[in-house]
Amino acid sequence: MPRQQSDQVKSAKAPVGRPPSMPAPRATILDAAAKLFAAHGFEGASLNDVARAVGVTKAAVYHYFPTKKDIFDEMMIDLLERQYAAVSTEVNAAATPPDRLKAFMRAQAEFLEGNHAAFVVMLHGFGGIEKNHWTEQQLALRDRYEALLRTLLADGKASGAFAIDDVATAARAILSLMNWMVRWFRPEGKTRAVDFALQYYALVVSGLQPRS
Amino acid sequence: MPRQQSDQVKSAKAPVGRPPSMPAPRATILDAAAKLFAAHGFEGASLNDVARAVGVTKAAVYHYFPTKKDIFDEMMIDLLERQYAAVSTEVNAAATPPDRLKAFMRAQAEFLEGNHAAFVVMLHGFGGIEKNHWTEQQLALRDRYEALLRTLLADGKASGAFAIDDVATAARAILSLMNWMVRWFRPEGKTRAVDFALQYYALVVSGLQPRS
Repeated sequence: MPRQQSDQVKSAKAPVGRPPSMPAPRATILDAAAKLFAAHGFEGASLNDVARAVGVTKAAVYHYFPTKKDIFDEMMIDLLERQYAAVSTEVNAAATPPDRLKAFMRAQAEFLEGNHAAFVVMLHGFGGIEKNHWTEQQLALRDRYEALLRTLLADGKASGAFAIDDVATAARAILSLMNWMVRWFRPEGKTRAVDFALQYYALVVSGLQPRS
Repeated sequence: MPRQQSDQVKSAKAPVGRPPSMPAPRATILDAAAKLFAAHGFEGASLNDVARAVGVTKAAVYHYFPTKKDIFDEMMIDLLERQYAAVSTEVNAAATPPDRLKAFMRAQAEFLEGNHAAFVVMLHGFGGIEKNHWTEQQLALRDRYEALLRTLLADGKASGAFAIDDVATAARAILSLMNWMVRWFRPEGKTRAVDFALQYYALVVSGLQPRS
């Protein structure tokens, strides 16, 4: 009976890569890894650390993610896809360029707060500025997201709603404000990320010079 | 002759920690380490890598810096001291709050460009957001620098030159713009950091809403 023989062989090898019994294993592993990479950096946390945080063996983690980089890659694709979906929905529901910009900044802050660890990993998971850990697919998703902001700014410039010299510079400035939040915003603090975003929105729209 | 005996003992041990023959050894080591930490992160570069980049033995690096963290610490103190000196000189030479803010942003950008590797190390040398690699002295120097900006903004608010709801938020926004530059500014590019800073200054002062 070849079938049974095959099962026996498989069974003998099973302990090495047997799926652990946990609900939603991929999401559970990604969540634990995000917290560890956010705190200690991608280089500062091992697959062993991830397994220990989840409460399974390293072999169990291997079963789902053959390498630590595979965890990072899936975490980033998932984050970037969900970010675009969440933020573009809010932007598209707003009518005027100022309201669309406000929606962008609000939704981005809300998404940051709701996905804080993975967000920190995306923007601050690696020490140093060598970029070779990003895949083409991830870079394309990042570019699509930045284009969402540039398009709404360009629309506002075209309609006269915004006075903008250079759309790319304005978009970069707004993303800098939002991105640097990973370095100081604490989800356990008393102020919500959305409230900080609204303060930044008011600053970006009004400017420091008093309006007569 | 005890003196000679002592010299002989020292001579026998010398190869382990003998100072290498290079000009300005501390500055040379700091410079090489800054480039390595900036590219690969503090965790991603070893003392061996630093020694190889300088062209000396690991023991020679040890002679000046017993640990990799000692290199980081001296690099940061040196950077923060020189940043404050350079930027505060420019700020204090300007008369009005807008001119002082422009001087701050210009001087900060110029300093970033002239000390790019060490700046990247300071703001992006470690992956993750655990902060335990900063010493009290370094944090105090960072706070002194941030106070320079907050003071000039508060002066501008008091005089009516700036319309600012919350000085701390405005200062944080401006530092976010400047700090995120370490993630995209390339010294080998065709635009100088000072020019980007002036574009940001115009944006921060004028705001996106057209002025009638």
